[in-house]
Amino acid sequence: MTVVLRTLRVESNGGGGLSDLTDRVTDEIRETSLDAGTVTVFVKHTTAAVTIIEVEPGLVDDYEQFWDRLAPREAAYKHHLVPGEDNGHAHVRASTLGPSLVVPFVDKCMTLGTWQRVVMMDFDTPPRTREVVLQVMGE
Amino acid sequence: MTVVLRTLRVESNGGGGLSDLTDRVTDEIRETSLDAGTVTVFVKHTTAAVTIIEVEPGLVDDYEQFWDRLAPREAAYKHHLVPGEDNGHAHVRASTLGPSLVVPFVDKCMTLGTWQRVVMMDFDTPPRTREVVLQVMGE
Amino acid sequence: MTVVLRTLRVESNGGGGLSDLTDRVTDEIRETSLDAGTVTVFVKHTTAAVTIIEVEPGLVDDYEQFWDRLAPREAAYKHHLVPGEDNGHAHVRASTLGPSLVVPFVDKCMTLGTWQRVVMMDFDTPPRTREVVLQVMGE
Repeated sequence: MTVVLRTLRVESNGGGGLSDLTDRVTDEIRETSLDAGTVTVFVKHTTAAVTIIEVEPGLVDDYEQFWDRLAPREAAYKHHLVPGEDNGHAHVRASTLGPSLVVPFVDKCMTLGTWQRVVMMDFDTPPRTREVVLQVMGE
Repeated sequence: MTVVLRTLRVESNGGGGLSDLTDRVTDEIRETSLDAGTVTVFVKHTTAAVTIIEVEPGLVDDYEQFWDRLAPREAAYKHHLVPGEDNGHAHVRASTLGPSLVVPFVDKCMTLGTWQRVVMMDFDTPPRTREVVLQVMGE
Repeated sequence: MTVVLRTLRVESNGGGGLSDLTDRVTDEIRETSLDAGTVTVFVKHTTAAVTIIEVEPGLVDDYEQFWDRLAPREAAYKHHLVPGEDNGHAHVRASTLGPSLVVPFVDKCMTLGTWQRVVMMDFDTPPRTREVVLQVMGE
């Protein structure tokens, strides 16, 4: 049994946008010596989150708009009383969706269904570089 | 340390309905040689998700209705511009709840509280057979 | 590879309130012999959940109010037809946010970003003692 930590730097567009991480996670698993186990995909930020979705452009729009309605950017947030802060919506969304996703793999491949893609949602306003940790564990 | 992959086939009712997987997950852990570790319950579909809930019939209805309100089936989804697609609500719900759940186990038993049950929510419309992967890891 | 189970008892305030578990989880990992791996933080209750958030007091209020709007305590729940039950909102919230969170660690430290804190949300009404299991796995 082995534990391998990898870090991805992801250039996001911000604004609630989605980044597809699937191919990069797949590559990182292949580069380890592990055949089977789990990968924990963990985003090191409080205004971004990870999940799985079908990356169909219409659906991606639907999903971004779903979060816009659920925790609107324009709503009143006490967090904005802190000087310089204007991203209460991004924190609320990120904590609800969650920064951590665990995916099994076998024969060096994640056990994803046909349409499943591992994605990061960057709910914060500006584009930026995000760090995503992959903890690959198995044998 | 060992990794054991099992696959469950779950006959779901669709329509946002719940399937209780607890007894089947319990059985699969018992059939491995492992005493302690984690089980990753992972549904291989973009319109179903896994979570934990108390399976009390009134509460199950409450929970299904909660998702009906949060992402209504009747709302407008761009995903429906793809020929044949009518399940935008199911995708939005599944990506929000998430396809992956990790539960610790010791002495071959999951560390569940008295009322906790491991369940799959099938948010898609028709009944169908769903695949749920269990990655059992431990010693 | 080793598996170490620890149990935290957390005195919560109930009422949708947040408890910061970060320092206690950090301590428990340090007390194991493990250097790298994952910790699965798992709350053994159907009306509490775990996530990560920046613990800034205004934002904590925002987040508690977000859940108050999403699944209001005062709404009608069929679960309340069960004698003695009045916490349908707490169940709905807990199952949506989820009882399980997996965080990688290296050099005995969780790979948390600067503002990330591991927290429990107790969505139930009364203050009480909650049990949180930590499954620490790694090498």
